Parts: sequence; structure tokens; C-alpha cells
Amino acid sequence: MTALFERMAIIGLGLIGSSVARVVRQHGLADHIWVCARSPETRQAATDLGLADAVFADVADAVVDADFVLLCTPLGTYKSLAEAFGPSLKPGAIVSDVGSVKESAIRDIGPFMPDGVTFVPGHPVAGTENSGPHSGYAELFEDRWTILTPPDGTDQNAVDAVAEFWRQAGSMVEIMDAAHHDLVLAVTSHLPHLIAYNIVGTADDLATVTESEVIKFAAGGFRDFTRIAASDPVMWRDVFLTNRDAVLEMLGRFNEDLSALQKAIRYKDGDALEALFTRTRHIRRGVIDAGQAEPDEAPDDAD
Amino acid sequence: MTALFERMAIIGLGLIGSSVARVVRQHGLADHIWVCARSPETRQAATDLGLADAVFADVADAVVDADFVLLCTPLGTYKSLAEAFGPSLKPGAIVSDVGSVKESAIRDIGPFMPDGVTFVPGHPVAGTENSGPHSGYAELFEDRWTILTPPDGTDQNAVDAVAEFWRQAGSMVEIMDAAHHDLVLAVTSHLPHLIAYNIVGTADDLATVTESEVIKFAAGGFRDFTRIAASDPVMWRDVFLTNRDAVLEMLGRFNEDLSALQKAIRYKDGDALEALFTRTRHIRRGVIDAGQAEPDEAPDDAD
Repeated sequence: MTALFERMAIIGLGLIGSSVARVVRQHGLADHIWVCARSPETRQAATDLGLADAVFADVADAVVDADFVLLCTPLGTYKSLAEAFGPSLKPGAIVSDVGSVKESAIRDIGPFMPDGVTFVPGHPVAGTENSGPHSGYAELFEDRWTILTPPDGTDQNAVDAVAEFWRQAGSMVEIMDAAHHDLVLAVTSHLPHLIAYNIVGTADDLATVTESEVIKFAAGGFRDFTRIAASDPVMWRDVFLTNRDAVLEMLGRFNEDLSALQKAIRYKDGDALEALFTRTRHIRRGVIDAGQAEPDEAPDDAD
Repeated sequence: MTALFERMAIIGLGLIGSSVARVVRQHGLADHIWVCARSPETRQAATDLGLADAVFADVADAVVDADFVLLCTPLGTYKSLAEAFGPSLKPGAIVSDVGSVKESAIRDIGPFMPDGVTFVPGHPVAGTENSGPHSGYAELFEDRWTILTPPDGTDQNAVDAVAEFWRQAGSMVEIMDAAHHDLVLAVTSHLPHLIAYNIVGTADDLATVTESEVIKFAAGGFRDFTRIAASDPVMWRDVFLTNRDAVLEMLGRFNEDLSALQKAIRYKDGDALEALFTRTRHIRRGVIDAGQAEPDEAPDDAD
């Protein structure tokens, strides 16, 4: 296959960045991969794992002559990185990112893009709870959705090129308004993570139940939450700081519903409980039918 | 291997009951399996699947001459079932159950046990989100914990026999006070299910985000919750009705913590967020080290 890009720069080599590097290598999506990483350990790993043709500590150096720059760092770094590498971009370059919040990405990166450079905000909805350059794998994006949120007036050729990149990486692609993306992800990703972090924290704080007991009997449902709550702390801190309003909105609705559920338990309203528990089953069926979960995944939850 | 019991009666043939029947067959833990099920479909399935030597609609008939009776029905059925089958039990019989709440099990079953019969409350902490006689499998209890909560003065031989039964079914066994069990499971199982049901309900109710979007982008973390929220509605209704006080206690603590987290997001307190998200990681490590989760489970959660 002809490479889509001659020189691709990947900024940040965590789970997503290193998975991208692997799939680009495997499918020959770019002729050259240049990687920028802040820590010497990650730069060494990039070399050891054969994920880069050149490694850089300085982001302004890494993007020189790149026709595709993909930002794979926590959202909180976007503004200072874009400010640092913007002036080094060559005319015609396409810049994209993989962050979980898109309005803030546009706000933080857009202003630093020089004339002739197009920023196409993107988000592959895929991942695991593992972090770092060793945790990535080339199949991470297969059968998952990547959402692109180009602002009005974005060069269509650039959008098409980024969409084609993700399709060749195994992903399906959807175009969406950035604000709507942030609302959708607030409920399908950010709120679930917030709840998981919270319940694991609550369990960790209990005086009446020991940590050893929480761990031993985690197969009753808790262990799924521990997995989500093992996700990268800095990345998730930045998600909640940058998608604050949408998360607070969804959290407000969650809390209203939880209060109603709490009241149903307190007043022993079995019919209300059963009605909710019956209603939620069909969503699982929809997720399975959409190919986003296996019908017979490892039996994790229990009575 | 010599069978532990001559005649075992399994009351209820859902996920747990049918898994027990399978493992009893596979390991020869009883010479004869008698099954009681309310619905004609389940009784037919018991026959078709070869899980029973005899099937009964009437629970009083099913326990006659049984030396081991295992109750595998929702918690809300315990009292009326115990009242119905108690008089038919033979002297020396052992009765146990698999319910997720143990104080109510003792309260509902104990009074109906005739002299010479021992009730040993039990709970295998294992399961999946699937229900019914076709969903069970013999390996369900392997490497999982079964908790027994015999009240003071329970015949030790009966406790030992039930413990041995679960060990031969592949489980590890722990003895615990019933009230403490109910508190431990409130946090490791009941609260996670409540939260999962609630968030899936919240997502289902949104007007701004469509159900189709919730389903398509479920790989961002939501899909784990949909799995837990697909668990049996009647069983879980009864769990929350019978373990009401412990669940409300844990829910109160969860809500306090969630309010603090909400405030941290509102006031952009990144340090507080990062501190919690870092602290919760070690619990996951503990769950993996304890053999209650795989280090590389299917990559389900994402950014």
C-alpha cells in the first residue's frame, strides 16, 4: 500500500501514541515516523521497540517537515505544545490529536496553527487501563469508532486524509460537532470513569471493611470498577478539568436518578427497582449488537 | 471420588443453580440430583440438559430424602419456600443457599428448619450477567470465594460438609459473620450494581444524546456498566430490599465522596483529582495479585 503520509510526527508515546506508531508501522501508513517524548525513558523505549525512525525531546524539532502531526499527550499540555511547535510546521501540514475532549482542543490548539496548516480534531474511542509505551498494540483501534470534530470551514481534503488514516488503522469514522462530542463522551466515558474512581476511593476509605476483603471479594462486580479506576491519573485529571461543564451536567442527572433509586430502596419500592433493572437490559443488547462488546465476555460480575 | 451426598436437591435452576448442577455432575459430588423449578420451561430445560435425575414443580416433593438441599432462588422467595419444604426434610439433612444477603437468609429460613436439620447459609461470590438454566457452566466457581456464615451454635460437621462441597466445586471457602458479609458485599457487589443500573438508566433517559450514540461509543467505559446492568432484575431487586441498611450506608458514603469530587471538578482542583486517581490504582493491582482479575483482560475501557 502507498503510504498516506511521508513523514508523520507522533507527539507523546503513551498507550494511544504507541499503538498508533505500531499500526502505522504494521500497515505502512507513513514512510517515516518521528516521535517526540518528554522523558528519556520513553525515548529509549521508542527506540528499543522500533517504533520511531527518529526520537526527539524538543517538540519544535519533531514536527519539522512532517506532513502529519498527531498529538497524543494529556489535554492539559495542548496549549503550550501547540505554541511551541506551531511555528515549525511546514505549509500544507495536517495536525490532529487523540484527546477525549474536543472543544478545549480546538480552543487550545487552533490559535497556534500558522496559515496553510489544518487542524483536524480527532478522538479514537478506544483504550485500556494500561499506560506507557509498552502498553500499546496495533489492534487497539479495530472495530472501534474514531470521532473527528472539524470546525466549520476546515479544509475538506485534510479531514478526508485524517479519516482515511483512521480507517486504515482499523477504525470506523464519524464526523461530529465538537460540543456534541463532549456531551456524548461525558456520558459514555467521562462519567463512568468518575463513578469508578469514586467507588474505588470509597471502598479504600472504609474502616468497617478491610482492603483485603474488598480485593478478595471483588468478583461480585467491584473488579470491573477497579479496572477503569486504574486508568492514567494525569490524562483523566485533564479530561475532567477540560470537559467540566458537560461532566457536571451529566453528574447532576446521575445524582437526581440516584436519589430516586435511594428513596426506592429506603421505602422498599420493589416495583420501581425491578422496573429500572428490567429497562437497562436492552442497552446491553444494543451494545453487543453494535459490535462494541462480546456477548460472552469473561464472567466478571456476580451475585 | 466418593460422592459427598447421596441425594442433593437443587431448588431453582438459574445461572447459579444450573452451574451447581453441572459441577455436581462433572465431579460426581452427589449420587442423585433432584431439581425443583417453578416454570415448566425450566423443568424441561433441566431434563434436556441432563442436569437432573428427577424434576419437581413442588418444593416439598423435591426435598424428600435429600441429605443436601441447596436453595438457588431469589432472596424474596426464601421464606415461603422454607415454610413449604421445611416439614418434608429428613432428619440429618443439611440445607444451604447461595443468596447474596445472609442476615435475611438466616431470618427467613432458620425458623422453618425442623429439629435435626442444619441450615448453613452460603454465598458463592461468582456469576455473570446472564440468567436462566442455559447460562450456567461447571467452571463458574473456580478460583472464586464462597462465603459461609453459620450462626453461633451451628453443627460443625454440617459446616465442614458444605465447605467441602464448595471446595470440590472449585471454590475457595471463607467463614464470616452474616452481618459482616452483608457489609462487605454491599460495597464489593451491591453498590457497584446499583451504580451501574443507575448510570445506564441516566444514559437511557437523555434527550441530548441518542441511545444510538450511547451504544456506538460505549467502548469509552460505559460498556462495562451495561454488562453489570444486564444482571437479573428480580434477583437484584431482592438484594436491595433485603440488604437495605448496609446498601444505604455504603451509598451514603459514596455520595459524600462524590460530592467532594464534584466540588473538585467545579473549582478545577486538579491536584485533588490527580491524588484520588493515583490512589485508586493500587487496588486494581491487589485484585490482580489476588487472582480475582486477569492483568490483560479484554481492553474495555478507554479515553
